[in-house]
Amino acid sequence: MFIHIHELRVRYSESDRMGTFYNSRLLEWMEVGRTELLRAAGYPYIEWENKGLMAPIVESHLKFKGRAGYDDLLRIETRFSRESRARLRFDTRVCLADSDVTVAEGWTIHALINPEGKPMRIPEWVDDLINGDEENE
Amino acid sequence: MFIHIHELRVRYSESDRMGTFYNSRLLEWMEVGRTELLRAAGYPYIEWENKGLMAPIVESHLKFKGRAGYDDLLRIETRFSRESRARLRFDTRVCLADSDVTVAEGWTIHALINPEGKPMRIPEWVDDLINGDEENE
Amino acid sequence: MFIHIHELRVRYSESDRMGTFYNSRLLEWMEVGRTELLRAAGYPYIEWENKGLMAPIVESHLKFKGRAGYDDLLRIETRFSRESRARLRFDTRVCLADSDVTVAEGWTIHALINPEGKPMRIPEWVDDLINGDEENE
Amino acid sequence: MFIHIHELRVRYSESDRMGTFYNSRLLEWMEVGRTELLRAAGYPYIEWENKGLMAPIVESHLKFKGRAGYDDLLRIETRFSRESRARLRFDTRVCLADSDVTVAEGWTIHALINPEGKPMRIPEWVDDLINGDEENE
Repeated sequence: MFIHIHELRVRYSESDRMGTFYNSRLLEWMEVGRTELLRAAGYPYIEWENKGLMAPIVESHLKFKGRAGYDDLLRIETRFSRESRARLRFDTRVCLADSDVTVAEGWTIHALINPEGKPMRIPEWVDDLINGDEENE
Repeated sequence: MFIHIHELRVRYSESDRMGTFYNSRLLEWMEVGRTELLRAAGYPYIEWENKGLMAPIVESHLKFKGRAGYDDLLRIETRFSRESRARLRFDTRVCLADSDVTVAEGWTIHALINPEGKPMRIPEWVDDLINGDEENE
Repeated sequence: MFIHIHELRVRYSESDRMGTFYNSRLLEWMEVGRTELLRAAGYPYIEWENKGLMAPIVESHLKFKGRAGYDDLLRIETRFSRESRARLRFDTRVCLADSDVTVAEGWTIHALINPEGKPMRIPEWVDDLINGDEENE
Repeated sequence: MFIHIHELRVRYSESDRMGTFYNSRLLEWMEVGRTELLRAAGYPYIEWENKGLMAPIVESHLKFKGRAGYDDLLRIETRFSRESRARLRFDTRVCLADSDVTVAEGWTIHALINPEGKPMRIPEWVDDLINGDEENE
């Protein structure tokens, strides 16, 4: 499966009094990973929304495995797959870029809806994106 | 001048590795103060936006004077005034609720625009709100 | 099981361009729910940390079921249980306070560690807190 | 004066219901600018704190001049100067990377303190950093 790699640094604003990152930041980093995967694949998510296709999270599972503090360089590894005819899934691993030690892992499942909130099937161009990816394996 | 009081507790997510609140949270607390002042005055800001009147910040000044950590109870004191024919001003003081020790002070100036971004004059009902306030002094 | 109720309003800073709350805010609201449950139970979490007992999240599952936008009043329902000899679990439901419509549901599992990161067993006073709760059922 | 340039993209989590970035994110981006300026200058701020020197914000002024939404590429321009014998100043301009249109401008003033909160004078190595910078003009 296609794995997209993106690096970012933990911001001061993302640290907490325990000295590690605050837990909710993981979901924000996972979003950055998805955004950069889709840009690299040629279909930036901003264009999905401009076309009237939104992909809100409906479910997520998160495992926190290690610490990461201010200024640590992280590697976000993101994978993309079809969960059902109308749902997409992204799997993410976050690790310290220097040591490859896992910081967190998780996945998100996304419904596809139009701006009125009506469920949409996976459009052909997203399907081709996933199929093309699978053919490349 | 009318002073609106609102209390809130510092969230864990608002703390940082220095053990105090991260600086940007002050702007978020000041927004909570404005929201609650306008609700108390009978004109909730959500209704402004529903009527097509938005009040984005155009300028702000902030002074950080003391520490406030996770679970500290804060008192947000907010005042409301007219900056110009088309701009509003809110002044805020944040202090520890128990000791009245000042944590931070600041102000924000807000333009009034419609959803297309066109500048709007202060509408009569906002003007009455400020005038009524001044008459009550 | 003991259910703790806490109400809060969606902040402007918690909204996103889709007009609902940004997904990571759920974890922040769940933390507020835990904080207020433990305060109501007589053992504020700030005192846990002051005693050298920390309870970082190790795992979480989240389901997003409905929309909630700026200024909506939310009810956070939080439950507390023992996951294992060394782990605690909190279950949370977030709903619109006025209509009881579910916005999101989720749980978090927390390890107990000391400031050096060493795993700790559930201390007697936490155990009593959970047992007392179960006896009250 | 030395100007440090750093680029970043607006995250979905940084957008708000008005479709632009939420105002408090500006302070977070300004912090990223400071962090990267100091890294480029050879004195990463994480090393300051590891040496026991902290530089919390004591005052800030912000001007919001334009919109920036999800996925916009921003250029953060940061300058560094001495405010007084014990205070540092950073000036920041944020613009759209493609068009150079200004999104926001602001400055922050930082006190220097040790971990106990005691004010510290600007250490020689910070002074040399600023002087070296001025000599390079």
